[in-house]
Amino acid sequence: MNIVILGCGRVGSTLANIMDEAGHVISVIDRNSDAFRRLSQGFKGKTFIGEGIDEDVLRRAGIEHADAFCATTEGDNRNIMASQVVKTMFNVPKVITRIYDPIREESYREMGLETVCPTIMGANAIRQILEK
Amino acid sequence: MNIVILGCGRVGSTLANIMDEAGHVISVIDRNSDAFRRLSQGFKGKTFIGEGIDEDVLRRAGIEHADAFCATTEGDNRNIMASQVVKTMFNVPKVITRIYDPIREESYREMGLETVCPTIMGANAIRQILEK
Repeated sequence: MNIVILGCGRVGSTLANIMDEAGHVISVIDRNSDAFRRLSQGFKGKTFIGEGIDEDVLRRAGIEHADAFCATTEGDNRNIMASQVVKTMFNVPKVITRIYDPIREESYREMGLETVCPTIMGANAIRQILEK
Repeated sequence: MNIVILGCGRVGSTLANIMDEAGHVISVIDRNSDAFRRLSQGFKGKTFIGEGIDEDVLRRAGIEHADAFCATTEGDNRNIMASQVVKTMFNVPKVITRIYDPIREESYREMGLETVCPTIMGANAIRQILEK
């Protein structure tokens, strides 16, 4: 798969490393070049500096031929906006948006975005340990 | 269960709301009183302003009679330090530490802390969606 990942923070870089290792073709976009230090030494993908709502940056990162786009910046709103740009402008089959705020996550999921909320996952994981 | 939750950020408040609703007795500690606004309106637990490594604050929050302690501040190091204080000084049966950094999470898990890493959960959840 060709995968464009926006945001090379903790979740983005972990995902990029996992999917690169699994043999996929990865492009990572971040507005801060320092963030790319989180990528593992053997990372074979490409990195691009810029904003995820910038169509030129998205095109350079190969969005037009991407099978998937994952928005994983630290900002929920930036992830939502970038996902909407990618869904509206480009024909990417899978668009996944990381949203930290559980309330916003529910709203956007109901609006049709495919969302992942690590906050709820973390809280539920702790609950499971507490109740076991 | 009597549960002391340190940190009323996104994960801590979500956990506090879930466990309060499930009928447990919850004390939440945060150094910033604004954070308690994240608790739901009907929250029946108690809130305490202070640091999680402060034994007086922990005692006021009922740590001596707690069945569980969950460290969920935004700072991995603060969570680790508070968990170690609670494990060393008080006889709390369950101590769970939220760690965002996957590398640190692995080290501390190997050292015997019960850890939860929402970063890895988020990345794995995205991977599952990508590969389905």
